[in-house]
Amino acid sequence: MNTGESPLRFVSHTEINESRYTNLYEKSLEALEYLSSAKCQGAEFTGWFHRPDAPALVEDLQSIRALVSELVTYEAVVVIGIGGSYLGTLALSEALADQKRPKHTELIFMGFTLCADYMAMQLEKLKGKNYAVVVVSKSGTTTEPAIAFRYILAAMRESKIGYSPKRIIAVTDASKGTLYELAVKEGFRRLVIPDSIGGRYSILTPVGLLPLGIAGVDLEQLVTGFSDAYKKITNEVERDVLSYATWRNYWLEKRKKVEVLAMYSPFMRNVGEWYKQLYGESEGKNGGGVFPVSVCNTTDLHSLGQYFQEGTPFFFETHLIFDRVRENIQIPKLEGMEDGLQYLEGKNLHQVNLAAASATIRAHKTNAPMAALHLAERDAYHLGYLFYFFEVSCAVGVLMQGNNPFDQPGVEQYKREMFHILGKPGF
Amino acid sequence: MNTGESPLRFVSHTEINESRYTNLYEKSLEALEYLSSAKCQGAEFTGWFHRPDAPALVEDLQSIRALVSELVTYEAVVVIGIGGSYLGTLALSEALADQKRPKHTELIFMGFTLCADYMAMQLEKLKGKNYAVVVVSKSGTTTEPAIAFRYILAAMRESKIGYSPKRIIAVTDASKGTLYELAVKEGFRRLVIPDSIGGRYSILTPVGLLPLGIAGVDLEQLVTGFSDAYKKITNEVERDVLSYATWRNYWLEKRKKVEVLAMYSPFMRNVGEWYKQLYGESEGKNGGGVFPVSVCNTTDLHSLGQYFQEGTPFFFETHLIFDRVRENIQIPKLEGMEDGLQYLEGKNLHQVNLAAASATIRAHKTNAPMAALHLAERDAYHLGYLFYFFEVSCAVGVLMQGNNPFDQPGVEQYKREMFHILGKPGF
Repeated sequence: MNTGESPLRFVSHTEINESRYTNLYEKSLEALEYLSSAKCQGAEFTGWFHRPDAPALVEDLQSIRALVSELVTYEAVVVIGIGGSYLGTLALSEALADQKRPKHTELIFMGFTLCADYMAMQLEKLKGKNYAVVVVSKSGTTTEPAIAFRYILAAMRESKIGYSPKRIIAVTDASKGTLYELAVKEGFRRLVIPDSIGGRYSILTPVGLLPLGIAGVDLEQLVTGFSDAYKKITNEVERDVLSYATWRNYWLEKRKKVEVLAMYSPFMRNVGEWYKQLYGESEGKNGGGVFPVSVCNTTDLHSLGQYFQEGTPFFFETHLIFDRVRENIQIPKLEGMEDGLQYLEGKNLHQVNLAAASATIRAHKTNAPMAALHLAERDAYHLGYLFYFFEVSCAVGVLMQGNNPFDQPGVEQYKREMFHILGKPGF
Repeated sequence: MNTGESPLRFVSHTEINESRYTNLYEKSLEALEYLSSAKCQGAEFTGWFHRPDAPALVEDLQSIRALVSELVTYEAVVVIGIGGSYLGTLALSEALADQKRPKHTELIFMGFTLCADYMAMQLEKLKGKNYAVVVVSKSGTTTEPAIAFRYILAAMRESKIGYSPKRIIAVTDASKGTLYELAVKEGFRRLVIPDSIGGRYSILTPVGLLPLGIAGVDLEQLVTGFSDAYKKITNEVERDVLSYATWRNYWLEKRKKVEVLAMYSPFMRNVGEWYKQLYGESEGKNGGGVFPVSVCNTTDLHSLGQYFQEGTPFFFETHLIFDRVRENIQIPKLEGMEDGLQYLEGKNLHQVNLAAASATIRAHKTNAPMAALHLAERDAYHLGYLFYFFEVSCAVGVLMQGNNPFDQPGVEQYKREMFHILGKPGF
């Protein structure tokens, strides 16, 4: 929880041209104002910005808490979704996997792939289990989740437990769409995805909150993280959110076209995936935008490290570092054995990880611009803070580039081609 | 297994300048000859090339089979390694997770991170378990695995079962190094990493074969896949390996600096990680080389798809597609419910996945060059074939760029900085 220290700090490790930076920073201030007052491009999708302060959030949390206490009594909960309808949940439930509330249930993610062997394996694992289903889809017609939902409905009908609409929660549109209509007809309980919040910005709606609650994430802490970030940004206390957006655009101007988000814990792998959608889908427009890459160090220093040190210097790195860990374990003594690690005895493992992070920044600096985001701790509060920080920084940065941070027109093209191949009526 | 059809086919979907392509292809032929006759840069590390045909492989397999049948009797086997000492094993064991032999044991990977919370969680999970340990390190002094091994040795000493060198297998140098010496002193059994085979090319040595055998992968099929690829390449039957290397270098010349390897199954996620090490570490040198990115479609079409369709066009895509699946499941009927998927009834799910792959190639083609690698099936044989294909194609491609495909001088720099910070003697 918040201890008075700043939950997150942005630090640049590479010198920049101050006058150009200042110039861009001014633009970021402007962009934030347009965003906050919903006068920017894509204004109809800025509902997420004031969401941490919205009365609707409080109402939603009430229904969600009631549902969570019911759903954690199942053996498993199948969460059906793709893209923004599941990546935030996956990211946060795994990032906090060692901090689950006692009452929680395993999430089984489906609907994010068309691989037949994977689908068959998942259905096989569910056989005989008493599970509930949370199906997340604004329209209900996105192919992958719709197919998975159909398999699940068919499996329920064939199972001993049988089909029961009581086991199904639809997170969908308030009043229209295929899933909405099916839910009304069958009597699934429903939670609403607001019209003004797009998939990749939706973690603080039932899309993320319901499954995260089931997975045992402390929703109160998470929401407080979001709302503290919101307050500090709107009260002009949190300004690193603008520094980071400015920094990214500064280097993009200098033809650094790739950002490498480097994290130092396997718990954070899927936070990288969430970050890639948030930025890639918001920014990759009109033939431009920074391409987002994420790595998990020190693991990936032993795979991509060589490239970052000596490959094409068209990237910059942002290192996400936790100041503290929960398990401050020491490097153990090993009497009677020679393993070359005597110099580490008495040190904490986290110290070694922090040394690796500093060392990487120093080493890679010779090939690329370096920056760091320091988070105090890996808990629901700080990750909530981080997610809101990323969302605002991303939106501000894309507005600075003159693009709409909230649409994704390019995603439709492969769908049209696919519907054509599959003979969907109308294509 | 091999049915007479070509196990792997490379297909270009974008037109190219034929004369330049032919020119580069000639260079690739030359590079292959230098590689095969060990007259190339880094010749001392080309032992992997003839390995599928080496008598040493047959001998190794005998010891490995004996060890596997002993080690699968443990509840779990901890595999300690980082980079090339574990990525191939992780990739193949997960790629074949639905095809395990009846006798196998769960692998628990350690030694690839310095995250204290993750280490604490893993040690906690091992408590009370009867496990064996495979520690993979050429020198024994790589920090991450050495630290994990120390934690494991300390945990063994403290456990009820107690420390026993019989439960430990060291995969290391034949005659020198910290791990070798510890193994001799303590009496761990040893398997040898040949001097002429570097980490990222080491899957067909005990580094990969021992843990893969324990995980239930069919080693015979895997080895046959490697050796068929080897025979076809050296007998000049398999030439797509050169087409692919040529294609990559062709686009690199045209300033397409990123390759996106797109796969269509969650089983393949970590094959992407292995591919990233193989190419990134081989190619990222002297300020150049293609930067490797991997995505899992259709999942990632809903996150990075927008960028590929409309972002900075500095990349090309290679789509890895399996012609067949094991579970040819149909889209089920759903009587009495309207979910908008009626047009898919009677189709196999795999057909839909193949349609998605074709559609993606068609759609993204407007922004970047496209190619495909078609593999007949996802089994140990074809993945063995693919891994050898990638290794040869990668080495040939880097030789064409005038670089050494087998060293990784840049990886040392962060280590030196880290040792300095941590006060390691001599730094």
